[in-house]
Amino acid sequence: MKKLMQEVRAFAEERDWDQFHTPKNLSMALAVEAAEIMEHFQWLTPSESRDLPEEKRKAVGDEIGDVLLYLVRLADKLGLDPVVLATQKLEANRLKYPADQVRGSARKYTEYERGV
Amino acid sequence: MKKLMQEVRAFAEERDWDQFHTPKNLSMALAVEAAEIMEHFQWLTPSESRDLPEEKRKAVGDEIGDVLLYLVRLADKLGLDPVVLATQKLEANRLKYPADQVRGSARKYTEYERGV
Amino acid sequence: MKKLMQEVRAFAEERDWDQFHTPKNLSMALAVEAAEIMEHFQWLTPSESRDLPEEKRKAVGDEIGDVLLYLVRLADKLGLDPVVLATQKLEANRLKYPADQVRGSARKYTEYERGV
Amino acid sequence: MKKLMQEVRAFAEERDWDQFHTPKNLSMALAVEAAEIMEHFQWLTPSESRDLPEEKRKAVGDEIGDVLLYLVRLADKLGLDPVVLATQKLEANRLKYPADQVRGSARKYTEYERGV
Repeated sequence: MKKLMQEVRAFAEERDWDQFHTPKNLSMALAVEAAEIMEHFQWLTPSESRDLPEEKRKAVGDEIGDVLLYLVRLADKLGLDPVVLATQKLEANRLKYPADQVRGSARKYTEYERGV
Repeated sequence: MKKLMQEVRAFAEERDWDQFHTPKNLSMALAVEAAEIMEHFQWLTPSESRDLPEEKRKAVGDEIGDVLLYLVRLADKLGLDPVVLATQKLEANRLKYPADQVRGSARKYTEYERGV
Repeated sequence: MKKLMQEVRAFAEERDWDQFHTPKNLSMALAVEAAEIMEHFQWLTPSESRDLPEEKRKAVGDEIGDVLLYLVRLADKLGLDPVVLATQKLEANRLKYPADQVRGSARKYTEYERGV
Repeated sequence: MKKLMQEVRAFAEERDWDQFHTPKNLSMALAVEAAEIMEHFQWLTPSESRDLPEEKRKAVGDEIGDVLLYLVRLADKLGLDPVVLATQKLEANRLKYPADQVRGSARKYTEYERGV
């Protein structure tokens, strides 16, 4: 991830695109790419979404790559490390949703409105 | 990232939340979290967005962590590696937007509608 | 809708908020509010989403109001009439997806990737 | 708007697409279309976004039509009237942000994080 962050930075600098990469613009690009992932799933049933044809799985993978590129770029512009942040968040969620209290409870899950 | 992916998987399994983690639902959660990042920037000027107060930078970091958690979880459910995908995408973009042709050109940049 | 558009315009002018209401910022606010609608549905089954508890239905309604306010405001800033645009789009979709050819076909529907 | 709602309903029924139009799916489609509006603005400066070339203005208008179609359809499935909801929301915001207290204040505006 460190390496990816440096490569994305070099990519932008070589093209003099740093001027466009305000955190504001990057947050928009990130949301647009996240929506492009979602577009592939919007009319599928839950089970269809678990069993994508290979061509569609590849197309979703392409968009996942885009989301990560913008996420890494945004984090870099803000001086943040996304893996550290995700790890901290997961740790916080472990405390917030103790496994022995929430297990198997769709009801509670919906109340929590949280997936990770 | 591999480690993070395994930890997120364990987190979901310990809570029996795997049943909710269809790729469809995860794509929605990812887009919701991406919008929560964006919410912090929506009324800022470009330069304000480059110079966030520390409290806001921390709040954005929190949401970046969420986005990465859902991205990693979604990729895992689809059997994909997000870092490999992002690296491939960046390589493709290097060929698509040759540095010596697009450098310093806001006009072209806008035509390309691409940031990374 | 005309009346609503005028009221939103007056609301912004009375607060001297017109300066913040660039189409760019309004497009972000619209997407953020659309995500807030979606947040209510992200972990629900399809059938749960058809049968919301009254409290949740009211909360979704609140966000629907927000989306329409920003949509109307954005259209106003661009000199566009959203109802005319939606009517034209629906007419175009009638021609694109003839009822007698697409009826009852989930498969085709997914191919079309279109819902309206 | 009433007429538009009825037309969208007829459109879906004629194609037997009602089965796909769960509120969950419609909320996704709405967010996807909102992101498509945003995509047109993501790399523009604030002033460029106020002064779109006609071709781009037309393309944005097309997406505005899509957003309204899905918004109306979602509201219909939930038995809600979007214009009533928006009017109520605007009234609530008038009380929440009194014009004489918030006028001309970018700072307060940012604190409020609200645009309408």
